[in-house]
Amino acid sequence: MKVVCLSGGVGGAKLARGLYDLLGADLTVVGNVGDDLEVFGLYVSPDLDSILYALAGLNDEERGWGRAGETWRALESAKALGADAWFQLGDLDLGLHLTRTDALRRGEPLSAVTRALADAAGLTATLLPATDDRLRTHVVTRAGTLAFQDWFVARQHRDEVDELRYEGAGDATAAPGVLEAIEAADALVFAPSNPFVSLLPILAVPAIRDAIAAREVRCVAVSPLIGGRSVKGPLDRMLTRMAGGTTPAHVAECYEGLLDALVVDHADAPADAAVQLVVTATLMEDRKGSRRLAETVLEVAA
Amino acid sequence: MKVVCLSGGVGGAKLARGLYDLLGADLTVVGNVGDDLEVFGLYVSPDLDSILYALAGLNDEERGWGRAGETWRALESAKALGADAWFQLGDLDLGLHLTRTDALRRGEPLSAVTRALADAAGLTATLLPATDDRLRTHVVTRAGTLAFQDWFVARQHRDEVDELRYEGAGDATAAPGVLEAIEAADALVFAPSNPFVSLLPILAVPAIRDAIAAREVRCVAVSPLIGGRSVKGPLDRMLTRMAGGTTPAHVAECYEGLLDALVVDHADAPADAAVQLVVTATLMEDRKGSRRLAETVLEVAA
Repeated sequence: MKVVCLSGGVGGAKLARGLYDLLGADLTVVGNVGDDLEVFGLYVSPDLDSILYALAGLNDEERGWGRAGETWRALESAKALGADAWFQLGDLDLGLHLTRTDALRRGEPLSAVTRALADAAGLTATLLPATDDRLRTHVVTRAGTLAFQDWFVARQHRDEVDELRYEGAGDATAAPGVLEAIEAADALVFAPSNPFVSLLPILAVPAIRDAIAAREVRCVAVSPLIGGRSVKGPLDRMLTRMAGGTTPAHVAECYEGLLDALVVDHADAPADAAVQLVVTATLMEDRKGSRRLAETVLEVAA
Repeated sequence: MKVVCLSGGVGGAKLARGLYDLLGADLTVVGNVGDDLEVFGLYVSPDLDSILYALAGLNDEERGWGRAGETWRALESAKALGADAWFQLGDLDLGLHLTRTDALRRGEPLSAVTRALADAAGLTATLLPATDDRLRTHVVTRAGTLAFQDWFVARQHRDEVDELRYEGAGDATAAPGVLEAIEAADALVFAPSNPFVSLLPILAVPAIRDAIAAREVRCVAVSPLIGGRSVKGPLDRMLTRMAGGTTPAHVAECYEGLLDALVVDHADAPADAAVQLVVTATLMEDRKGSRRLAETVLEVAA
């Protein structure tokens, strides 16, 4: 069963890990690049990195993000020399950013660099950025329009969000392999990521949205909410403000016209939505939990 | 006694350390930037870094370069992810490169960034790059014209050098503070660095050479050779090929018209040269050795 999973960072990566355990080389993960940024001159792609680390088993399960066994010596050194170290970069994580930045500067597209990193990490699944073009999520708030990471990390997402803008998305083309994978897929999965800042930036690439809308296979999303609350992050506040609520129907509406089914937690049932709702335990506390949820998702998608 | 010391990397930095012990805030070190390079997208200035580390006591005296207590986790991670890690970058060292690169990208000139780094490291002496403009040493060899680090590090300086080119030097202006420091100095010192790749790039900036030529105080160089041999590096081969020999006279000729005296090792005496020769033990095995040589240099310069 060939599956394409659209994913943002940490939460989505957990489901991707479960799918990888079940599907191996039949899995293609398309990662969000709307959060990408330059830190200290290095190109950082937080969502692609979280997915790569999770699939390769390099992620820190306890901390919930970044690399296992991480150290922070370079950043501590930078701070001691006066740097504004607003973005966390561990030493091992830096190794990836250095490698990617070097390859990008040699003119390689992000998709080729991502493939090389995934190969080096020993992945058999395919990891693709949504696009090789520049696509950046901006957040419209009363404090102004902010680059995603400025809002999310530097301002700790304290500003209420009125609108999202996916700069560059309208002119972006899908990265090589993305449309082919969608067309060849037996099912599509939307990981339990924040729709606004993780999956809608991917779907803002016209060719990707069109390919998904034109598919003949099932498309299943997993809700990132449990009991109407975000497991982590500002999604519940964003949904309430921009969509009017945090029920499964509100989540499903984010992907209007694209979904066949939405997997929700027991805490969100019973509920009504314009798509089939499937109720299960959606919290992934460990790798076993990821695999169990992935099994349910594949059953629904079949 | 206000002293301006022109210096390259490790060898020169040892004398600079000795001068700093004696002079404190009255020392200005002007560092070579002809070796500067971009590694993994980061701006690395090996000579400025070596000087900063030596003056701040952060250098690794046993290894002879880089930071004490250094680790290599980021680079190991990069290698594991397929990077071509041809240039050694330790984690602590990376912290400096990240800080500098970030500031340069915000538009700060190298001199301002260097001042901020020196301040953060607690230095009371002044550390200046020769220029804020782009100046790059290229090495003309039978294998072609190579960027300095490509020849020095990647090819381990195995190609014989026919000529040096200091790209950009002719149009470069001195960094803010350099000419003022030379004009205010009671003495000038040329550190025991490789003339061709460390000090001549500084002297290739027309305004710096003119200011030094026009001075009224003494200018003393320390020969980097001991018994006609380099303590480290390819200088003896370069001098033999390009200048015809490795005697004190050959070293002094590198700085023709600029020197009043050359300090040489006992192993190179007796000798003749067009400038005063002062004989002492020039090998600096530790901080005490640096200080002792600095004392001799200041006596000669007075």
